[in-house]
Amino acid sequence: MDYKKYIANVPDYPIEGILFRDITPLMNDGKAFKSACDEMTRFAEELNVNVVAGPESRGFIFGCPVASNLEIGFVPIRKPNKLPRETISVSYSLEYGENVLCMHKDAIKKGDRVLIIDDLLATGGTIKASIDLVESLGGIVAGLAFLVELTELKGREKLEGYNILVLEKY
Amino acid sequence: MDYKKYIANVPDYPIEGILFRDITPLMNDGKAFKSACDEMTRFAEELNVNVVAGPESRGFIFGCPVASNLEIGFVPIRKPNKLPRETISVSYSLEYGENVLCMHKDAIKKGDRVLIIDDLLATGGTIKASIDLVESLGGIVAGLAFLVELTELKGREKLEGYNILVLEKY
Repeated sequence: MDYKKYIANVPDYPIEGILFRDITPLMNDGKAFKSACDEMTRFAEELNVNVVAGPESRGFIFGCPVASNLEIGFVPIRKPNKLPRETISVSYSLEYGENVLCMHKDAIKKGDRVLIIDDLLATGGTIKASIDLVESLGGIVAGLAFLVELTELKGREKLEGYNILVLEKY
Repeated sequence: MDYKKYIANVPDYPIEGILFRDITPLMNDGKAFKSACDEMTRFAEELNVNVVAGPESRGFIFGCPVASNLEIGFVPIRKPNKLPRETISVSYSLEYGENVLCMHKDAIKKGDRVLIIDDLLATGGTIKASIDLVESLGGIVAGLAFLVELTELKGREKLEGYNILVLEKY
């Protein structure tokens, strides 16, 4: 499917000079949204994963349908003070600013095969932090899936050796 | 399904005196997560909705699988400065603090039949704000679905006349 038809290009958002790729029209189109979820679900099946993880909040958008489709668990990766039980955390720099991400300590078991899903691969900071969280709990990052990759930001360089699915590139 | 088995009770979170119902163990259990998504999907089918909407970020957790299951659109309701195109907004008070929620102006069309999904019904502030957003764009709120209702907080009183699905009550 040509997903680009459903992605709006918003200039100067969130700051001047950034061309924001807005996926909300795709989410609003039932066929396009299901098609993207289904492509990621097939990728997860091929990789034989038993857990999906995704960073807040747009990682939930595709990650939760994939987990539900496969009847496997979903692990939310969240900003500080959002997860109520014992967490591990990692800090990193992102496209515009700094960030910390957290995961419940009991969310991943040693040997779990994990697919990490986010809407967009930009500089790769968020996804590298997510990988670090999964691996620090003994999980195996079997793959990474994104709706969109912004190739100019070279996030892929941070993700060498990982199995990556991208549905649209800019 | 007895979902309470999968909901952790965390005392004094996020502030003293609050017993937090943590749904992450349920999300982490594939069968329980899929079962909850499937119950909400059946409810959406019965109501003949053509759009699902959910407030950031935990409304995405069940809302996105339901939309994907039915091949219908999902509308994210988000905090300010998260949606890049023209929005409408509403402010409201919630269990601990104040909040503003926004929706893209083109997200709902007049006459759309909308199911609003969130993880938890507490005081009802978030969901009432979500209803206001949908209705102000001419959408019909066909139903509201929650995994959990905290009955003591009487959120249901704000939601009279709406068709409500709740999977577990405390």
